[in-house]
Amino acid sequence: MRPRVVIAGAGFGGLTCARALKHAPVEVLLVDRNNYHLFTPLLYQVAGALLDPGEIARPVRQLIRPLDNADFLQAAIIGVDFERRHLLTDRGPIAYDYLVLATGAQSDYFGNASIAEHTMGLKELDEGLALRNRILTQFEESRWTEEPGRRRALLSFAVVGAGPTGVEMAGAISELIRLVLRKDYRGLDINEVRVVLIEAAPYVLGTFVPSLREAARRSLQRKGIEVMLGAKVESVTDSAVRLAGGEEIAACTVIWTAGVKASDVGKGLGLQLVRQARIKVDSTLQVHGHPVVFVVGDLAGAADPAGGGAILPMLIPVAMQEGRHVAATIADMVGRGGASAFRYKDPGIMATIGRNSAVAQLGWLHLSGFPGWLMWLGVHLVNVISFRSRLVVLVNWAWEYLFYDRPVRLIVRARQ
Amino acid sequence: MRPRVVIAGAGFGGLTCARALKHAPVEVLLVDRNNYHLFTPLLYQVAGALLDPGEIARPVRQLIRPLDNADFLQAAIIGVDFERRHLLTDRGPIAYDYLVLATGAQSDYFGNASIAEHTMGLKELDEGLALRNRILTQFEESRWTEEPGRRRALLSFAVVGAGPTGVEMAGAISELIRLVLRKDYRGLDINEVRVVLIEAAPYVLGTFVPSLREAARRSLQRKGIEVMLGAKVESVTDSAVRLAGGEEIAACTVIWTAGVKASDVGKGLGLQLVRQARIKVDSTLQVHGHPVVFVVGDLAGAADPAGGGAILPMLIPVAMQEGRHVAATIADMVGRGGASAFRYKDPGIMATIGRNSAVAQLGWLHLSGFPGWLMWLGVHLVNVISFRSRLVVLVNWAWEYLFYDRPVRLIVRARQ
Repeated sequence: MRPRVVIAGAGFGGLTCARALKHAPVEVLLVDRNNYHLFTPLLYQVAGALLDPGEIARPVRQLIRPLDNADFLQAAIIGVDFERRHLLTDRGPIAYDYLVLATGAQSDYFGNASIAEHTMGLKELDEGLALRNRILTQFEESRWTEEPGRRRALLSFAVVGAGPTGVEMAGAISELIRLVLRKDYRGLDINEVRVVLIEAAPYVLGTFVPSLREAARRSLQRKGIEVMLGAKVESVTDSAVRLAGGEEIAACTVIWTAGVKASDVGKGLGLQLVRQARIKVDSTLQVHGHPVVFVVGDLAGAADPAGGGAILPMLIPVAMQEGRHVAATIADMVGRGGASAFRYKDPGIMATIGRNSAVAQLGWLHLSGFPGWLMWLGVHLVNVISFRSRLVVLVNWAWEYLFYDRPVRLIVRARQ
Repeated sequence: MRPRVVIAGAGFGGLTCARALKHAPVEVLLVDRNNYHLFTPLLYQVAGALLDPGEIARPVRQLIRPLDNADFLQAAIIGVDFERRHLLTDRGPIAYDYLVLATGAQSDYFGNASIAEHTMGLKELDEGLALRNRILTQFEESRWTEEPGRRRALLSFAVVGAGPTGVEMAGAISELIRLVLRKDYRGLDINEVRVVLIEAAPYVLGTFVPSLREAARRSLQRKGIEVMLGAKVESVTDSAVRLAGGEEIAACTVIWTAGVKASDVGKGLGLQLVRQARIKVDSTLQVHGHPVVFVVGDLAGAADPAGGGAILPMLIPVAMQEGRHVAATIADMVGRGGASAFRYKDPGIMATIGRNSAVAQLGWLHLSGFPGWLMWLGVHLVNVISFRSRLVVLVNWAWEYLFYDRPVRLIVRARQ
């Protein structure tokens, strides 16, 4: 019997790990609560009515077809029984010889109930679709609303958090409104529409160098987005955001990208947690005291020796490199070898602001504006999940670029 | 002030009417409970995980952009106040000078509560997405089910009604399973899977000539579908279909395409109804006694003088021709002219059975098998809603044809 590697989570970390185990003498079982792997960098384009789910998500079973030793089960992960070596799910326990925890991250509201209740997240595919429905519904709703104050609140969109997700979402909403919906709603007074980006820090895109932060801020403002820096959100209602200073911004739609923490799976395991509720791991990505249990991706709190021991950020390249490292370690351990320390190689970071502007920081190479956007375009098109998706995404992107169109402006949810 | 034409429903009848009024000296207001127009002939491909909503639905506002005199409001239609000339909606009344009722049709369960509760329909976009989710969920579920009888019921799909929708859906499910899911689920025993097409008449596709009915039946059977003719459904539970003779077919998923009736809007108006709860109209498509009120499409019970006075069938070409006729009549009436009688020109009918077979009956031209399928392909590709959709649909179709793939095998619904 080959040893069984159970991988909890089919995101970038888990999927990469499964793929890297292709030739190892093990059985791989991927478990995820969704039946698809999500290409999260383009989720904001689903919310922005440019792409449909089929372009940014792929069935896990499809993706693991080339792996002869891998299978998949759809189930929500509840916990781990380390003693019996069982992964616990809502469908029952799954026995493992090696366990890779890769359940990712979720929105963090820092215990503020009003934020949790009244804001929309952008981490999951169903959230992207919900946000698309919401934005479009607000505009239809506004046509039935006589009261100007109410109409202005309906047509105001606040994005909290100016990291890459917040910046990209704010850009996408602003362009959706100014380039597309403005033509759909002939009577629309564009002065009644607001897109506000709220950030507690004194700059946007804090992980970038100052010159790129500044380029991004200017680019956002040119696209009609109000950038509020040094602004801390205190509470949110169904029609307003209240800032720490007392200022209120009337907005019925508030998107929360300001906080993220590890998935709840980590909390219940009795393991030591570090910043953002991530599981503390050894330099080998093993859980201390559990040599057959590994953690990768956003759930893992791995220290970066090159970064003075700081915890590695929640980024796709980190998750993928960790997944690959753990796969190699497991293959070594099956062959009676030992675990080695993980070392992150930083490929750079980028963020896009609408249809022709992006910032990219790739080692010594810093790009902004149109050159940054071309770089962003190339990198994402290469990484989109399949050749077919690439064709369809290319058609849709070209279509938008040429005709300022967002084809998927549909308010729809699957019937229950 | 130009007279205001209110069109209730943005399906093929309503949208065609609005477009045909482009140059008439009227204001047009389209009202629909959805913000999109649905290309219903390809809805089964959304259910079959081949296309995403963006390919078969388009925002109404996008479609009416070229019409300078048209606007749209999203609202559900409740009724009509003929005296005050108001269309009544869930958002409030809308005044009209001319009214075109085009709210289409819905599933008819013939008062059988067990059918209404336990079957899934395929008339609306949200139903297509729900059915896709259901089919894929059954396969994931079956992997957790040890009991063979239960697993067989999970993997059995009954389609009731062998009209074009039933035939197309049965073909799409069978191919999804045999060509795609079989590769996704390595352990799957194909003998545990059933696709059953249940029809009360002694033949499939009753509106076609006998030779094409027979060609379709053979084609269905070649694709592994069990065709049960002369079989009347008596009741449905959450795991079985019970036929009139007492026979039970174990199946957790039952799709109902055997009955269709006009939308409920017709019922509450106090007007005379004909077969399938359709509103009786004059030969001019006016409602008797209400010369400014017209009915088009599935909601209209228009007699066909060429067919010996029989009610015209619920078909897209009927709806479109009626919409065009009513637009011309309204333009005439605004110019002090009168109404003329509608005459239907039959362009033919077609239905497809999977990836390389279809039947087409176009006057004297009867095609089946591969030639029929090429005809079906051409007609649908030309009629798909936009040039962009055409490209994307073509990519997806070619992809499926070459690689036996259904890219959108995603279980997802928009978060509430």
